[in-house]
Amino acid sequence: MTEYRAPTREMAFTLQQVAGFSEMSKACGYEDASDDVVAAILEEAARFAGSVIAPTNESGDKTGVRLDGEHRVATPAGFREAYQQYAESGWASLQFDPAYGGQGLPFSLAIPVQEMWHAANMAWGLCPLLSQGAVEALSENASDDLRQLLLPKMISGEWTGTMNLTEPQSGSDLSGIRTQARPDGDIYRIKGQKIFITWGEHDMAENIIHLVLARLPDAPPGVKGISLFAVPKYLPDANGDPGQRNDCKAVSLEHKLGIHASPTCVMSYGDNEGAIGYLVGEENRGLACMFTMMNNARLTVGLQGVAISERAYQQARAYTFERTQGTAPGEQGVSPIIRHPDVRRMMMTMKTLTEAARTLAYTGCVAVDYANARELPDDIRNRFKRRADLLTPLVKGWCTEIAQEVTSLAIQCHGGMGFIEETGVAQHYRDARILPIYEGTNGIQAMDLIGRKTIRDQGKAMAELIGDMRPYTGQQQTNTLLTAERQARFDQAVAFLEDATRMVLEHGDDEQFSGAVAFNYLMLSSTVTAAWLMVKAAGAAAPGSESQDAFARSRLATTNFFIDHILPRSSGHLTSLRAGDDAIMALPEDEF
Amino acid sequence: MTEYRAPTREMAFTLQQVAGFSEMSKACGYEDASDDVVAAILEEAARFAGSVIAPTNESGDKTGVRLDGEHRVATPAGFREAYQQYAESGWASLQFDPAYGGQGLPFSLAIPVQEMWHAANMAWGLCPLLSQGAVEALSENASDDLRQLLLPKMISGEWTGTMNLTEPQSGSDLSGIRTQARPDGDIYRIKGQKIFITWGEHDMAENIIHLVLARLPDAPPGVKGISLFAVPKYLPDANGDPGQRNDCKAVSLEHKLGIHASPTCVMSYGDNEGAIGYLVGEENRGLACMFTMMNNARLTVGLQGVAISERAYQQARAYTFERTQGTAPGEQGVSPIIRHPDVRRMMMTMKTLTEAARTLAYTGCVAVDYANARELPDDIRNRFKRRADLLTPLVKGWCTEIAQEVTSLAIQCHGGMGFIEETGVAQHYRDARILPIYEGTNGIQAMDLIGRKTIRDQGKAMAELIGDMRPYTGQQQTNTLLTAERQARFDQAVAFLEDATRMVLEHGDDEQFSGAVAFNYLMLSSTVTAAWLMVKAAGAAAPGSESQDAFARSRLATTNFFIDHILPRSSGHLTSLRAGDDAIMALPEDEF
Repeated sequence: MTEYRAPTREMAFTLQQVAGFSEMSKACGYEDASDDVVAAILEEAARFAGSVIAPTNESGDKTGVRLDGEHRVATPAGFREAYQQYAESGWASLQFDPAYGGQGLPFSLAIPVQEMWHAANMAWGLCPLLSQGAVEALSENASDDLRQLLLPKMISGEWTGTMNLTEPQSGSDLSGIRTQARPDGDIYRIKGQKIFITWGEHDMAENIIHLVLARLPDAPPGVKGISLFAVPKYLPDANGDPGQRNDCKAVSLEHKLGIHASPTCVMSYGDNEGAIGYLVGEENRGLACMFTMMNNARLTVGLQGVAISERAYQQARAYTFERTQGTAPGEQGVSPIIRHPDVRRMMMTMKTLTEAARTLAYTGCVAVDYANARELPDDIRNRFKRRADLLTPLVKGWCTEIAQEVTSLAIQCHGGMGFIEETGVAQHYRDARILPIYEGTNGIQAMDLIGRKTIRDQGKAMAELIGDMRPYTGQQQTNTLLTAERQARFDQAVAFLEDATRMVLEHGDDEQFSGAVAFNYLMLSSTVTAAWLMVKAAGAAAPGSESQDAFARSRLATTNFFIDHILPRSSGHLTSLRAGDDAIMALPEDEF
Repeated sequence: MTEYRAPTREMAFTLQQVAGFSEMSKACGYEDASDDVVAAILEEAARFAGSVIAPTNESGDKTGVRLDGEHRVATPAGFREAYQQYAESGWASLQFDPAYGGQGLPFSLAIPVQEMWHAANMAWGLCPLLSQGAVEALSENASDDLRQLLLPKMISGEWTGTMNLTEPQSGSDLSGIRTQARPDGDIYRIKGQKIFITWGEHDMAENIIHLVLARLPDAPPGVKGISLFAVPKYLPDANGDPGQRNDCKAVSLEHKLGIHASPTCVMSYGDNEGAIGYLVGEENRGLACMFTMMNNARLTVGLQGVAISERAYQQARAYTFERTQGTAPGEQGVSPIIRHPDVRRMMMTMKTLTEAARTLAYTGCVAVDYANARELPDDIRNRFKRRADLLTPLVKGWCTEIAQEVTSLAIQCHGGMGFIEETGVAQHYRDARILPIYEGTNGIQAMDLIGRKTIRDQGKAMAELIGDMRPYTGQQQTNTLLTAERQARFDQAVAFLEDATRMVLEHGDDEQFSGAVAFNYLMLSSTVTAAWLMVKAAGAAAPGSESQDAFARSRLATTNFFIDHILPRSSGHLTSLRAGDDAIMALPEDEF
């Protein structure tokens, strides 16, 4: 069985000194979230993740989940116990409103903690992930009564939540949703089928609140006619406890490439009298409500990419230090394979990409806290809102793409053993493959970045981001951390991003061009942003005379590696982007 | 169930007009391999692959293989029947010596045929792949008697062959092999354990000839003390039929990420009196003998990369033309997703990479035929020998790396459905993951390219390769197929390869530098070589006035796509290579 030890020092450093948590908590009234508190929370979470959750990962993958004849889902051994302990220890409530039993800590402080759950067991971690999204959607959109009815139990973790969007004919494009909602007094009757519902049914908690997109009888067509409903598995009784069983159930589970222990359900609503649903927000405004939930879920799916990369890296580290084979340059006798330069290249790639993805993900999440801080002036909040919106597709897109690379390299470092399921490293690779797909495929993220986040605001948010990079370019940089060559490479990459953005804006009216270059633009902007954050981190780790510290040297080493071996990819993305849509669209359909 | 239809026109074109098969068959005495014969063979193989082998692929993956208490392996339904038909139809003997029942056709003509087997069912195709390697090793190295004893049944396909190198402590580095061979009259007694033995035991053929690396009692240490032995499962009797059971058996099977239907065996030799083995070649020269086998096996593993890419592409093509979602630019109503530019980008990437990998693999194999043609003058044969040796790591390395990308994109094109095992596309992704690992990891291929194939001959073979590219650069090119911009990009990439080679040679004595840059050098040289072959193909498809032909336009479109969207990666590889080993080796071990 493979172990997981959360890199708490690096997490705290990234959160506080790179992503800006320390300033944010001062500026936004989170004085309680002191360094000591952060450290204590991370250490305790690390202990829980490593000792309680992580041991369920491999066995959960092997056992998988089963649906019985009564539409019940049995989860693998240890899952329910881990979940109960998680809820009882208060982990579910960290960042939520004290009015409903939450602990009122920043969203971004919950992020390293959640990273640990996903690294420990990604399939298990999806249940809290979806529940938290449901809490966010209800907190922002539901009526007071509905919040009182549902939030305390969800925030405590006693109940979990789900997100019901997809139907067989309607996935990336939600305009085709057909599930019906018929008004019936104060409530609505829901009828329809939803697919790909993560943790749609399980035995870990006593109730499940499904958030379901559906159409009212007279709703306008398309996405403007979709409403959001909360559909409890058990209707709360007069005491707020689970009462009558609602008319909804899981009718089958998918057999998947990975996350075997996470039940992906086909959900059927209203086979009999119609499932009782409560309207969330206004009629026909369901998509907007769902987006509150989806945006943060996109950030946390990006975070899953960081998490699974960290887990895979740790497993490869253990193996490459232990396995001996051949003689490394300058050595005698057999060497641990970590000493062979090509293995070292793979390990450095894994470590560096994981660190860089972490800086990106945490930075996006700190921006969310700023954007939500009611005490801040509007212009500052709006600026951070733009930043969070801009970074969301980068975090979701890039952190999940690098997870493919990192988990694949982890297999490669194992040689033939990597292909054997018992080794355990193949599971991370299989699990990770869902990440570029769910919560909006990375193609959708790319369209979101180029359309809503860049062209629609005429590049304002991107210009602000590039503006924040500029103090780290050679012209303005006064420290000498980077060699001249590396500094020049970084400066050039920032210029690439400016060039690309200009080109994207120039072709803003050309949907085909935008669609064709979107993915390269997403990869380019993410790579450059991650490079900037790595440079920032190297500087933060080496303030003045402390630069001989081992941690500071390590951060500089990975930053140099990023600039030498990851950042050069940006040149390829720019060249492809410059080539536009020509070669992409030239081949007639019948020549495929 | 997904279908497979071999792209016979493209295969014939690539073989004959790009890889040089037509000239080769004239120059090397294969006049019988006329265009008509090639076409007939490919069509018949396509029919067999599509109708007999392909239908066993998904069910084989689900069933997998089982070892019973008697050390017998049961293969999935249909496997044995397909194999019997394969052997009876003469597919096993295409390229082998008529003196032992072969058909005497060129090795490279068997390549598109084998591509079809692997595309139809990669797990099944491994059995013929290994058998052919064993035939090659015996043909080149065994005594006349041993050849007479074994080759006719192996070439007919009645018996299969395996390759026994790896032991638990000895994988990439074979110097640690411990299996013992004790002389006993005319034969040897083999004792030891081998792991990762593909098709080491099965029920598809009546006998299996294991080629086993082992040490004689007084052998020198390291790779200079390894000998090669043929160890039949059943010892041939006086009539040459399978007789007495030998003292060797499969003791367990691995549970793997992919190729579930291919039995990967732990083989035990000599649990009792010692397995009877026949020496192949000279004592202590086993590694050289095994290399004859391994070199061609490396080419055919690269070919598997082409094959699985083609299969995944075909499945994504079917889905993206059928699945509708959203409205594509310039359309009304819902569109098939192939019309969305980002999906088109993925499909073009898949198609282009697969085509390009095919040109590279076939070209490597035609070079092998030239190198083996005894009627050619030595200098020509040697030149092609150098070429084949140089291209082998490129074919194995690059074609298996792109297979990861293509099979992953095939999943991505399917959205959520791609992650569901029943869709079938995830199988290709799982199956493909072994390719960068077996027959020498791609890290080993990179070391082979930079060490044995570049530094050792002081860049001669690489200079010849670059020399062959030069007529396609702008200075010498007279046709106007490419736009000036694309021509310039191609020219620049050729210059990158020259630069990189110069740098590699300059640091030829620095093992650490070579090891650190090897993988980037492998990817750079492969990408540039593939670009050259694509440009060559576009020209070959459009001779003069025929350029309005749909096939010619298609080839130009994929060539343009390669230059715009794949070739730009070479710039990143060069930048990383220029950065040398510095950032790769800088982090101290205790900072990982």
